[in-house]
Amino acid sequence: MSVTDELIANNARYAESFSGPLPLPPSKHVAVVACMDARLDVYGALGLREGEAHVIRNAGGVVTDDEIRSLSISQRLLGTEEIILIHHTDCGMLTFTDDQFRASIEREVGIKPPWPAEAFSDVEADVRQSVARIKASPFVPKRDSVRGFVFDVATGKLTEVE
Amino acid sequence: MSVTDELIANNARYAESFSGPLPLPPSKHVAVVACMDARLDVYGALGLREGEAHVIRNAGGVVTDDEIRSLSISQRLLGTEEIILIHHTDCGMLTFTDDQFRASIEREVGIKPPWPAEAFSDVEADVRQSVARIKASPFVPKRDSVRGFVFDVATGKLTEVE
Repeated sequence: MSVTDELIANNARYAESFSGPLPLPPSKHVAVVACMDARLDVYGALGLREGEAHVIRNAGGVVTDDEIRSLSISQRLLGTEEIILIHHTDCGMLTFTDDQFRASIEREVGIKPPWPAEAFSDVEADVRQSVARIKASPFVPKRDSVRGFVFDVATGKLTEVE
Repeated sequence: MSVTDELIANNARYAESFSGPLPLPPSKHVAVVACMDARLDVYGALGLREGEAHVIRNAGGVVTDDEIRSLSISQRLLGTEEIILIHHTDCGMLTFTDDQFRASIEREVGIKPPWPAEAFSDVEADVRQSVARIKASPFVPKRDSVRGFVFDVATGKLTEVE
């Protein structure tokens, strides 16, 4: 049995107590951009329930064109107004550089990737970088409440980056 | 009190019963790519616990360069091997076209976005499109277990797209 099969079996149990459908627009009018890290359960960590917030995630929780696309759709079509960014301690993105990652792919695959890996050496600085990218984008209309946090994977606590 | 403040207050309660840190690499060696939709709690729907799986999310659950970047980092540096793609019923991406979205932004902002919105008119077809994009990428080394599903927002059930 693959892990995929095991998780799909879990879904059958989840569906037994599921009651839907809820409305499409997030009821708390908030979008979260977070790292894909397995230890960060965004719904749990923020006390979110189904239907309340958009959750956007990628390697690092960084803001690239695809996060701007998602935030643009979230705000323009589905009415979200606040943005919460979450990076975390002990992030994999702290363990390599863009140049190293690019070189290792080129060595193995023979092709340089057409995107940077977006690695970083300072979590707080990269949260500020991500906030700055959103604030600089003309495609995200509501930029008054864009706040960045670091999730501590040891304690489960969020600390705001000023 | 903003919604952000309310969710950060929730986090203090979450941290009270949190025990960490867990190891960085996902213990189930799986990465999930899902839509950002608020009604889809990926950890709940798949019965995942903290530390088990990378979770990548965006508008639609589509595969663009940024998802390839995240999957590449997930597999090459953190040892994941299986990929689960999740789109869902009643998706916002079914309600507009890329041309409409682009035109509305150009009208309001005066600038055409440099990325397509990635809207779609058929959920199953777009799951297949996303699977095909991963299978075609030289930057994602493990492509033997890439399976796509549709989450039903009325019942909470996942159905595989063949």
